[in-house]
Amino acid sequence: MKKVAFIILMFLMILACKKSSKTISYSSNKIEKLKKYPSDVISFMEQWKILLGDGTHVEDLVNYKKKDFFYVENDGKMDWVVYKTPNSGVTSRTSSNTRTELGQKAHWIPETGGKLTGTLKVQHVSTTGDATASSSYSVVIGQIHSDEGHENEPLKIYYKKFPGHTKGSVFWNYEINTEGDNSGRFDFSNAVWGHDFSVVGTSPNVYPKESENGIALGEEFSYEVNVYKGVMYLTFKSKGHETVKFTKSLIKSEFAKKEDIPEQVVKVYANREKGGGVERETAYANEIQYFKQGCYNQANPKSTKSETYNGDITKQYANGSYAEVWFKEATVGSATKPN
Amino acid sequence: MKKVAFIILMFLMILACKKSSKTISYSSNKIEKLKKYPSDVISFMEQWKILLGDGTHVEDLVNYKKKDFFYVENDGKMDWVVYKTPNSGVTSRTSSNTRTELGQKAHWIPETGGKLTGTLKVQHVSTTGDATASSSYSVVIGQIHSDEGHENEPLKIYYKKFPGHTKGSVFWNYEINTEGDNSGRFDFSNAVWGHDFSVVGTSPNVYPKESENGIALGEEFSYEVNVYKGVMYLTFKSKGHETVKFTKSLIKSEFAKKEDIPEQVVKVYANREKGGGVERETAYANEIQYFKQGCYNQANPKSTKSETYNGDITKQYANGSYAEVWFKEATVGSATKPN
Repeated sequence: MKKVAFIILMFLMILACKKSSKTISYSSNKIEKLKKYPSDVISFMEQWKILLGDGTHVEDLVNYKKKDFFYVENDGKMDWVVYKTPNSGVTSRTSSNTRTELGQKAHWIPETGGKLTGTLKVQHVSTTGDATASSSYSVVIGQIHSDEGHENEPLKIYYKKFPGHTKGSVFWNYEINTEGDNSGRFDFSNAVWGHDFSVVGTSPNVYPKESENGIALGEEFSYEVNVYKGVMYLTFKSKGHETVKFTKSLIKSEFAKKEDIPEQVVKVYANREKGGGVERETAYANEIQYFKQGCYNQANPKSTKSETYNGDITKQYANGSYAEVWFKEATVGSATKPN
Repeated sequence: MKKVAFIILMFLMILACKKSSKTISYSSNKIEKLKKYPSDVISFMEQWKILLGDGTHVEDLVNYKKKDFFYVENDGKMDWVVYKTPNSGVTSRTSSNTRTELGQKAHWIPETGGKLTGTLKVQHVSTTGDATASSSYSVVIGQIHSDEGHENEPLKIYYKKFPGHTKGSVFWNYEINTEGDNSGRFDFSNAVWGHDFSVVGTSPNVYPKESENGIALGEEFSYEVNVYKGVMYLTFKSKGHETVKFTKSLIKSEFAKKEDIPEQVVKVYANREKGGGVERETAYANEIQYFKQGCYNQANPKSTKSETYNGDITKQYANGSYAEVWFKEATVGSATKPN
């Protein structure tokens, strides 16, 4: 009988030991499964608010998600935050493009600066549009936005891919802080990988040559925007691609005189209502700025003549009339001294 | 024999189970012991640099400490970050007072704002000084410091205790952003608990009446400085004391005309070289600011005639010629919308 008692006791102990180890693995599974909100994947969400493509404004993003616009996906390897928006939906006060995009709560001026980073892959851009319009088939994945004066954008980082191409382009645009009336405003575009903004089709359905060093849909890359003492330092990285860096002052203009306007700008704005202006000598000096990050769809029914199915979101999502961007890592905070 | 084998097996299992639980408690002890740097106690250290009372400048405060100036103490209940500095030591470019004080790396303007909080107890202030000098026996425990123009201070939070008194005072000063020449600059002082800055002795060794609602050495209190859209919101809390709040614009002056100068200022500056000026209409609007926190000793051999033992730090520490402040919690970051 004693022997039996020992055996029972031992089994109980084995169970006890097993149970505790089971509990541990169960809770780690549970933690994995609990990553259901974007704020579980990228921890900076309390520093942002969001505007979704359906017009929803949300101020508190901790433990928030919205089906079809802002949610978590796992690609088999890790969790990503998905930002998705159709070609036609609810737009913002200063733009007719829809967006599912974070807006930084903290504001800053170029002199005090700030830093934004992101590692992402673009999963989709609109498959319809006018190839002669520079914004067609593109999405803006990060911005610096002014909160004063003209409320222009010293930085927009784009991904753009023409229909039928495998590789798309990453480029960034600087919009001038226009001297006087803002009707003369223009963007100057800088290619990172592939083409810049000015490379367009010769007619609405004729595309330029595919770029050789471009980035495909689903291909990971990262950007860092570091504004330190009035100067913007940009770094772009992607496996198998050259790392590309840029430096641009935000407090001293390079476009303050008519004769400074680059050829690219003259060409891009030749047939547009916008353009033709010059910038203030001090550019964005002392003007309040904030970062944006996510999916700011540049396709719309007007300027890019993209398909919108009369605004039916289900139809747009089913037929390629949307943009979708996945971020796996991102940070926002103070500027750092550049190396 | 089988029975013996079972017994041995069982003992091994008991040991195995015990061992794992022991490991856990050992590591939590170890974690406790590893809290040896200020950055282990307050996690915001990477956002600051420091100037110590011995002149040491340090830019990276993660896993940094310095004996006698910046280190960790346990009061039997919890760990605190100690900021300590003598009456005479190495001073800064803009002040003849010594300090062991953090300086915020990120900068901001009143319009974009920022927030600083701290929970602390003052352990010591200089026991020598001139009772007629408003800065005697005091230490500044938090500041907003301008990084432009006159580099004045829109906020200095003080703790001051006269020798022999049990209770000291907490007050805060606003220094004007002087119109024109900075020689006319002055501080306007607001009492939180106890007296303000203007309550002084009638002669160098005669002290005013002890305040009834003051704060003793070693008594915990907290402050919150929230600068939101140009307006500074201050909140002071301490157990057993009334919570006190203040609101002050940093972008619209209340001291722009001679007739606006308060009686307190006229009295305090009557016999000083400083004072007599007015402030710019827009106060600190658009001027770059940063937070400071720690122990900024206001006792010195000049204006407060405090004892310094010819600068001998050991003697100053042994004889009460120092200030010492302990913080247990603190945060720095973006402004928040006030309630």
